Amino acid sequence: MDTTQQPVEPQLPYDVFAKACPSRGTLEHVTGRWGALTLGALYEGSLRFNELRRRVDGVSEKMLSQTLQSLERDGLVHREAQPTNPPRVDYELTPLGHEVAERLLGLIHFVEGRMDDVLAARERYDVTRGAR
Amino acid sequence: MDTTQQPVEPQLPYDVFAKACPSRGTLEHVTGRWGALTLGALYEGSLRFNELRRRVDGVSEKMLSQTLQSLERDGLVHREAQPTNPPRVDYELTPLGHEVAERLLGLIHFVEGRMDDVLAARERYDVTRGAR
Repeated sequence: MDTTQQPVEPQLPYDVFAKACPSRGTLEHVTGRWGALTLGALYEGSLRFNELRRRVDGVSEKMLSQTLQSLERDGLVHREAQPTNPPRVDYELTPLGHEVAERLLGLIHFVEGRMDDVLAARERYDVTRGAR
Repeated sequence: MDTTQQPVEPQLPYDVFAKACPSRGTLEHVTGRWGALTLGALYEGSLRFNELRRRVDGVSEKMLSQTLQSLERDGLVHREAQPTNPPRVDYELTPLGHEVAERLLGLIHFVEGRMDDVLAARERYDVTRGAR
């Protein structure tokens, strides 16, 4: 097997550790602050733009719009415009987006579940740094 | 059960969807561009600063240093300074960091494995947008 570091050659696997690999950009869309929360929010089912905005507490209209566009372009979110007046637009996960969101939520729930440990570690760290 | 939205109250679970919840910051340390790659790189074993810098292709010295500090403060990375001259500093995952990295790598490997689908989706998206 060829193990030289040329991740963009078609025969070689994608590798997020290589800065030129396109998988790094996708990982960032998926794990970026708003990308992660948007995928997580859509895991339960389709939502309209304003519903999403309420669920992803703190996101601006512009950031949510950009986030949805990246996720749609990567094939993770499907945008469905209903032919009503005014048009109603729903967002939902694609099957691929659903699989990504599943793994992401596993990570999110794990982090949420261990926050007591994280906060205790922060306290220890801050005390030690103060004493140095 | 009290279901009002006050995620920082000790009895209530942490919730990354609430903007004031400290779990959101930790999720960002873990999933941020450099945080994710740093945790992933350390999953295989401890590394020195310069080894890490080479592995996390594209990271600056300053960003890697800040990333390691956040991860250390959250209790995910352990920093071990050897009493040599010059001092040798190794970084390794804590048990909690190891569990986080495991879930993160599950996501990373999944994304890497589906990049052909992502790139095909991007091409379809760009063609459709061009035709509008």
